[in-house]
Amino acid sequence: MSAGTARALLARSAPLWHRLTTHPFIAAAGDGTLDPAAFDRWLVEDYAFVIGFRRFLAALVTLAQDPRAADVLAAGLAPLQTELDLFRRQAASRRLDLSAEPQPTTLGYMSYLHACLADGYPVAVTVLYGAEKAYYDAWAAVRASARGRSPYWSFIDNWSSDAFAGWVAAVARLLDATVPGGPTESMCRAFDRVVRFELRFWDAVHHGEAW
Amino acid sequence: MSAGTARALLARSAPLWHRLTTHPFIAAAGDGTLDPAAFDRWLVEDYAFVIGFRRFLAALVTLAQDPRAADVLAAGLAPLQTELDLFRRQAASRRLDLSAEPQPTTLGYMSYLHACLADGYPVAVTVLYGAEKAYYDAWAAVRASARGRSPYWSFIDNWSSDAFAGWVAAVARLLDATVPGGPTESMCRAFDRVVRFELRFWDAVHHGEAW
Amino acid sequence: MSAGTARALLARSAPLWHRLTTHPFIAAAGDGTLDPAAFDRWLVEDYAFVIGFRRFLAALVTLAQDPRAADVLAAGLAPLQTELDLFRRQAASRRLDLSAEPQPTTLGYMSYLHACLADGYPVAVTVLYGAEKAYYDAWAAVRASARGRSPYWSFIDNWSSDAFAGWVAAVARLLDATVPGGPTESMCRAFDRVVRFELRFWDAVHHGEAW
Amino acid sequence: MSAGTARALLARSAPLWHRLTTHPFIAAAGDGTLDPAAFDRWLVEDYAFVIGFRRFLAALVTLAQDPRAADVLAAGLAPLQTELDLFRRQAASRRLDLSAEPQPTTLGYMSYLHACLADGYPVAVTVLYGAEKAYYDAWAAVRASARGRSPYWSFIDNWSSDAFAGWVAAVARLLDATVPGGPTESMCRAFDRVVRFELRFWDAVHHGEAW
Repeated sequence: MSAGTARALLARSAPLWHRLTTHPFIAAAGDGTLDPAAFDRWLVEDYAFVIGFRRFLAALVTLAQDPRAADVLAAGLAPLQTELDLFRRQAASRRLDLSAEPQPTTLGYMSYLHACLADGYPVAVTVLYGAEKAYYDAWAAVRASARGRSPYWSFIDNWSSDAFAGWVAAVARLLDATVPGGPTESMCRAFDRVVRFELRFWDAVHHGEAW
Repeated sequence: MSAGTARALLARSAPLWHRLTTHPFIAAAGDGTLDPAAFDRWLVEDYAFVIGFRRFLAALVTLAQDPRAADVLAAGLAPLQTELDLFRRQAASRRLDLSAEPQPTTLGYMSYLHACLADGYPVAVTVLYGAEKAYYDAWAAVRASARGRSPYWSFIDNWSSDAFAGWVAAVARLLDATVPGGPTESMCRAFDRVVRFELRFWDAVHHGEAW
Repeated sequence: MSAGTARALLARSAPLWHRLTTHPFIAAAGDGTLDPAAFDRWLVEDYAFVIGFRRFLAALVTLAQDPRAADVLAAGLAPLQTELDLFRRQAASRRLDLSAEPQPTTLGYMSYLHACLADGYPVAVTVLYGAEKAYYDAWAAVRASARGRSPYWSFIDNWSSDAFAGWVAAVARLLDATVPGGPTESMCRAFDRVVRFELRFWDAVHHGEAW
Repeated sequence: MSAGTARALLARSAPLWHRLTTHPFIAAAGDGTLDPAAFDRWLVEDYAFVIGFRRFLAALVTLAQDPRAADVLAAGLAPLQTELDLFRRQAASRRLDLSAEPQPTTLGYMSYLHACLADGYPVAVTVLYGAEKAYYDAWAAVRASARGRSPYWSFIDNWSSDAFAGWVAAVARLLDATVPGGPTESMCRAFDRVVRFELRFWDAVHHGEAW
């Protein structure tokens, strides 16, 4: 499959992917019109998610099938620390409680990251790629217009930076190398789940969600 | 704590627990008035859940802190096989596709079972107890009226039997022995999550849920 | 590979495998000439190993890639309980302490079972097959001569029975179905490790081993 | 326990610990008299061990019971990458094959790191502390005499540096905070295993070991 496994996953998800990168929550964060209450809600929910995501990424390091692949995956952990520190500073200045119970969709999505590990390394790398690529593409879509304008710039910058782009590309190469023959059925199902969970997550933080 | 850790968890969850054991889905399954489409939906979703639950219970066996505790937990796996075989026979006779993609709430809940394992053995046993006790109490509540009357008797019988009651009681004793001093904050949070996930799960299968 | 993946693994290990099935410890247990102190040592070490093995098998259930494979693996847990009960009865009648610290080789081997899980499901099923097939072949080799003659018959019977043979054959089919194209390099390495660990384990219990 | 849990573990292991910090292999590496073949053997075995150790440390990040503890543990991964790069450079210049099959003791010890994760987070942090503290104390014991003299200085410097000392102290504080009441029986057993495995590992690389 000359196009690469990562590219094939994106291609077959094009319609939903378009909804991700044009999601109203992202657009409003980018142009600064986002309701501050929605931003606060997102900050608390996404912090919980990133804590779960760090667990997931660390678990993936344990499953890497050769030392060089583990090098690539482990390299993603240090930037996560920078990201968590940013969340904590912003939460402190906004007096938000980062230990609040996550909303149902957040808890379901972050739990799925953990659960997919039992489906094996290729599926779990697929999930990693889907979650990271979604973040990059969505925030990169508003980067140009948000710079110097959005009060949420520090977060937008984090996930649309060249450094983050480089890491996402490294994960894509890892995925292509792990499963050179194109995505398996299990990988397609897992990728679809990530895309759908992302959309639900953004809907849920945008409008709020009760248990 | 003389009342025992398991009992304390139930006591502090009493209001939500009452909603569980009187849920309209259970009541309708018990008196036979359940919409057959809702039953079919439940059968497919609950099969996916039980598959995830078996993974969770097997993972708990690996975390048991002494061989006798592992004996108790492993003893729960053989009845799960009987249960899965019942689902498969009923699905075949109803021409249902058990490999269908689960609804979002089902996927979130079954993923949470897996994710809670990272919170350590006491939390994971708490989740096991919550999930099993909810099933027993709910189905036992309609057992007497359902016998010889409900077309769903084989399932009702499975989770309201003396054998299942005995296993749930053994898990309660395991929980009490593991954490004799009453539930920790992490255990309370995990138990609450199970109760809320169960309620959402039954709502979602009763009325259907789209991604 | 027409011969099957399991068979290919055995074929390339033939010389070491022959040493396994003709090991002096097994031969002496079979004809009843085994030093009782060596048997007692084995009983304590093998109990620790089986406890670790149960954890490993339960973990494998969580990694099974489809429900029918999980059915096969989970079916191996109930016989393990019977086996553990046999060890406990024999240990009680011989006044042996089953909680004694394992010898270094036992601890290394049982730890390897756990560690190989990070190498993925195909490698872990390979390890399962190697460990179980070694037990079957070794004890089956002395079954005929040991019956009615060896004081260790209950153990010999356990691992040379038709029931155990059937389970080992089911694991071989699972392995063949999981990796139909013949063993990968990782699988060959893992299988070799099991064979070498088995040989070292029997040497160590036969003659004793200090930390 | 005013002395702290980490300190208590060290205190009760004093005799074996003294053998660790005065081991002939370390002493010979420090004064430069080590047989180059023994150093080469160590380099290959310790690289395999560090690869396994990274898996173990990453798995510990997934088990950390609060985000700040995960911060501490995750911070240990970046220095491991520097360490692995040092091993690879040295192996390349010495034409050593880092993918060689580990010796039995190496494989047993690195497997034990993985296996102890099933004993729960407090035990696993104990194992982390034991392994890291042993490295620091042993190499620090020869630091002064080795500087500018030993051909193995880059490795000695790595594990006797102030930066490494700071990380080991942070792990000790984590252990003290996790189990403030002094080590449990399971923790003592795990710590003893690490000390004994370390001694066997150094013996095995010093003199060589065959399967």
